[in-house]
Amino acid sequence: MNTKNCFIGQSGGPTVAINASLAGVITQCQEEGFTHIYGMVNGIQGLLEDHFMDLGTTFNSEEKIDALKHSPAMYLGSCRYKLPTVSDDKNTYDLLFKKFNDLEITDFFYIGGNDSMDTVAKLAAYGETINSPIHFIGIPKTIDNDLMGTDHTPGFGSAAKYVASSMLEIAYDSSIYKLDAITIVEIMGRNAGWLTAASALARTECNDAPDLIYLPEVVFDKERFLKDIEEKFKEKSSIMIAVSEGIHDENGNFLDSGDSQQYDAFGHPIHFGTGKVLENICKEHFGCKVRSIELNVLQRCAMHIASKVDIDESFFIGKKAVETALADHTNVMMGVKRTSNDPYTAECIYSNVQDIANLEQKVPAEWITKEGNDITQELYDYLYPLIQGEIAITYKNGIPSYIDIAHLKEN
Amino acid sequence: MNTKNCFIGQSGGPTVAINASLAGVITQCQEEGFTHIYGMVNGIQGLLEDHFMDLGTTFNSEEKIDALKHSPAMYLGSCRYKLPTVSDDKNTYDLLFKKFNDLEITDFFYIGGNDSMDTVAKLAAYGETINSPIHFIGIPKTIDNDLMGTDHTPGFGSAAKYVASSMLEIAYDSSIYKLDAITIVEIMGRNAGWLTAASALARTECNDAPDLIYLPEVVFDKERFLKDIEEKFKEKSSIMIAVSEGIHDENGNFLDSGDSQQYDAFGHPIHFGTGKVLENICKEHFGCKVRSIELNVLQRCAMHIASKVDIDESFFIGKKAVETALADHTNVMMGVKRTSNDPYTAECIYSNVQDIANLEQKVPAEWITKEGNDITQELYDYLYPLIQGEIAITYKNGIPSYIDIAHLKEN
Repeated sequence: MNTKNCFIGQSGGPTVAINASLAGVITQCQEEGFTHIYGMVNGIQGLLEDHFMDLGTTFNSEEKIDALKHSPAMYLGSCRYKLPTVSDDKNTYDLLFKKFNDLEITDFFYIGGNDSMDTVAKLAAYGETINSPIHFIGIPKTIDNDLMGTDHTPGFGSAAKYVASSMLEIAYDSSIYKLDAITIVEIMGRNAGWLTAASALARTECNDAPDLIYLPEVVFDKERFLKDIEEKFKEKSSIMIAVSEGIHDENGNFLDSGDSQQYDAFGHPIHFGTGKVLENICKEHFGCKVRSIELNVLQRCAMHIASKVDIDESFFIGKKAVETALADHTNVMMGVKRTSNDPYTAECIYSNVQDIANLEQKVPAEWITKEGNDITQELYDYLYPLIQGEIAITYKNGIPSYIDIAHLKEN
Repeated sequence: MNTKNCFIGQSGGPTVAINASLAGVITQCQEEGFTHIYGMVNGIQGLLEDHFMDLGTTFNSEEKIDALKHSPAMYLGSCRYKLPTVSDDKNTYDLLFKKFNDLEITDFFYIGGNDSMDTVAKLAAYGETINSPIHFIGIPKTIDNDLMGTDHTPGFGSAAKYVASSMLEIAYDSSIYKLDAITIVEIMGRNAGWLTAASALARTECNDAPDLIYLPEVVFDKERFLKDIEEKFKEKSSIMIAVSEGIHDENGNFLDSGDSQQYDAFGHPIHFGTGKVLENICKEHFGCKVRSIELNVLQRCAMHIASKVDIDESFFIGKKAVETALADHTNVMMGVKRTSNDPYTAECIYSNVQDIANLEQKVPAEWITKEGNDITQELYDYLYPLIQGEIAITYKNGIPSYIDIAHLKEN
């Protein structure tokens, strides 16, 4: 019997589901009898510096796997390192494949977004040129939901649940005074509006917020925006607006100020976000109470309100990635195929990673209302199943109990 | 037997516990056989416009009381109306007491912060001058924890739990890259640092964030702040800072920019917060990755992560307020007296509201380290019991299910 050894890495920005995929990979590797399950610390960059750990010995109980599955951010840390092309720097590839060879690596799993899939694609392509038997498998994750080759991305459903729940709670908070008011909630997703669209899931029989939704897929027009609000004020006094951080004008200029002309009281240039810019526009135009709220990193790290569908799926995709490698596939990214929407069912698929890396999946125009300020029922139906279910978080001393990540803090 | 009728109102800013106090008042009034339990919609201002509702008929089941207890913001809405003095405007008092008389009101409960206690004090004082038999009882709430006459305020524990949990999750989010980075978390509390101090509850055996804590009770010194960070960088690469929105220099000038000299790209003056100002100072000085996160209104409306101790206590105080009125007390604010810290036990007390209204309880100097950049163990021990326990939130369609507040949206 051949021994099996693998590397696993995480890369790009964090989500609350990426550790569930890691837990899935470890679990399946253990079930398949892998000898060593190596985790790269800080991704491919850490591997280049020989920074890795043996995950098989660390995660030797169901309890520890569960703790991993229910902890936010990235247990293995991340990097923003882009592999050079082979023609630019063949040495890096020789070095990596020598390490693979020394450790008798049979399989390589990399969990991440677009840039991470670029790493998988490059390694797989190089591996092919040297007839390497190693399987290179990409496992998707991103709160932005902008990857091709999958119905949606692990991590998105939990971020969407956070966004919808927060929008609901902010709507309650905004309901208490009897006066004209505008509340702007700025949501992540620079180029794709999926997460901003998910704010619509806050609507219930008791809540109609958000009243207006602006995605980066629609060119932002300040005059139309003000007109939209004027129309809403005819119906109600407290207007709730969801806006993507990445809205921009017809020339592609983002609404937020960049690091350019603005200065703080100390004379230093200052950057402020899209929500703040819109807040200012509304204050000037309407003269009423206006506030902007940036959900910021909490939308990608609030594990305590994760979606069960998302966490379960992320774990399952991790397991399936190992099965896919053992079925002798390589150069692929795992994905989800929705097989039914009501009840929601899905299965695990994989596609050639070269066809996916460096592409962006945006919200289709037909899923945005023709006025460009809301989403259609089709998009709502697409989003809805992904935020269902809650996970049982363990609280200790009044706060969530998450896995120890001391190994990320070593120098 | 005399009939009993009461008014209940909510005022000031929202918390996730203020509806629990309302639920407590309603429950106890029902147990005591009140004929009418009137809720003022939008506080005393709503009452002046005859906007009130019968809560006894609305909340006619334990299920409905539970839904109220577990919903954020303010079921009855709020106002920021300050009662005039009697000498300035006796008419307003005559009008209010005529309404009380017409409806045979025996008891008046007002749930709020400092301004609301001012309303209670003024009504009680006027009532005394006309020998009114009505009992005027204040029920405290504020996330700021800055009221006198109580060990702590209802609503604070839940906000503290949100702040500590968010700080923990942001610390995980900030751990993934291996580079020098500063993360600044801006927390509410303009004049009192209690809530910012609660960020220290995020510390566990797996997490030492926040590394530095700046409260408004300590004069802010930019040079010392930069020096503090330099010292921390000698030990670690990712520095987490908790800062109150209200830190200020020795002349009382707040660090945030006010609405003064800053202008956005459209030439309008722009206001940005303390966290953003510190972010800029750090970027300029350290040249490393710096980000600031404003927890904003979510710290006062995130019902889904409320403290059980807080919600239970808030409900209990509401009940006790009714008992206190029926024991023929008036002109008092209810409060909490801590009788033991470990295990935590407390009892309900009341004090003369005139001694409390318009005063602020700040963090004592001896509970702040002499360096002025952290809290002492005593403050940690004081805070710790208040965030314990979780409440069972009902989720529906993937988001929390909260009580219908359609009555607040009527014109």
